[in-house]
Amino acid sequence: MAPTLHADLGFLGFLLGTWRGTGTGGYPTIEPFAYREEMVFEHVGEPFLLYRQETWDATTGNVVHLERGFLRPGDTDGSVELCLAHPLGLTEVASGSVEDGSITLEAGPKQIVRTATGLDVARVLRRYHVVDDTLTYELDMATDRTPLTWHLSATLERMA
Amino acid sequence: MAPTLHADLGFLGFLLGTWRGTGTGGYPTIEPFAYREEMVFEHVGEPFLLYRQETWDATTGNVVHLERGFLRPGDTDGSVELCLAHPLGLTEVASGSVEDGSITLEAGPKQIVRTATGLDVARVLRRYHVVDDTLTYELDMATDRTPLTWHLSATLERMA
Repeated sequence: MAPTLHADLGFLGFLLGTWRGTGTGGYPTIEPFAYREEMVFEHVGEPFLLYRQETWDATTGNVVHLERGFLRPGDTDGSVELCLAHPLGLTEVASGSVEDGSITLEAGPKQIVRTATGLDVARVLRRYHVVDDTLTYELDMATDRTPLTWHLSATLERMA
Repeated sequence: MAPTLHADLGFLGFLLGTWRGTGTGGYPTIEPFAYREEMVFEHVGEPFLLYRQETWDATTGNVVHLERGFLRPGDTDGSVELCLAHPLGLTEVASGSVEDGSITLEAGPKQIVRTATGLDVARVLRRYHVVDDTLTYELDMATDRTPLTWHLSATLERMA
């Protein structure tokens, strides 16, 4: 039996489900690219959401990126926290807020930890927008060599 | 069709699979407890393993803890890196080494980032041992108030 959504997560309930769609990426240091994506927000009755996403190259079908983590209510009304692991050799703790189906989350240098071989990501800014069963997002990123710059945009639809 | 294991992951191949079993936990600040656990190491053909685990209270069946992340080869032969998200409001970047089926991974205060509401974990020491289809592990933890102290031990069996 599916657990009941934790009372503290009501304001994040609009994210629940499996989302699929396509996006485009770019950055000053790489060639533009197109991708397919699946993003899942689910819960287990506890006061956090499980978040995972996977993207594939739109042409080759090869895995491009994965993220695994947890979204939690923050310490004030409408605030949220994201704890995320990346396969690129880094973790990200982002904080932000939710308003009218939009979520903004930002992680700076003190919230991003790299492994010895990890990518030199220095800042990540995420903006998610949900209207009914459509989720769009934009992600900006800074590295040690590049200031905060647009990196990803995608549009996903909620699966039944 | 399942992808081929990336050549860089040969030394971690003994972890692959779904592991289930039971464990016990304790800490100076909490009551001892028993748990059931499922741990999964899988791959997508890229040079990292996906790691996830979930534990349930042995008596009530309630979810106790989850971890989601990635295990990667480090910058020297036999070294490994773990990037991990916890639902407790923290991320962990651990580094360590693999030898004869044993993995030791440690994360200190600079590798652990907490959210505003995150648990005050300061250090985590993980030791995994695999013999054939049996995986045992011990986990020690330090918080701001408690020095590095035993927290978890479990024995899991690899599922077919």
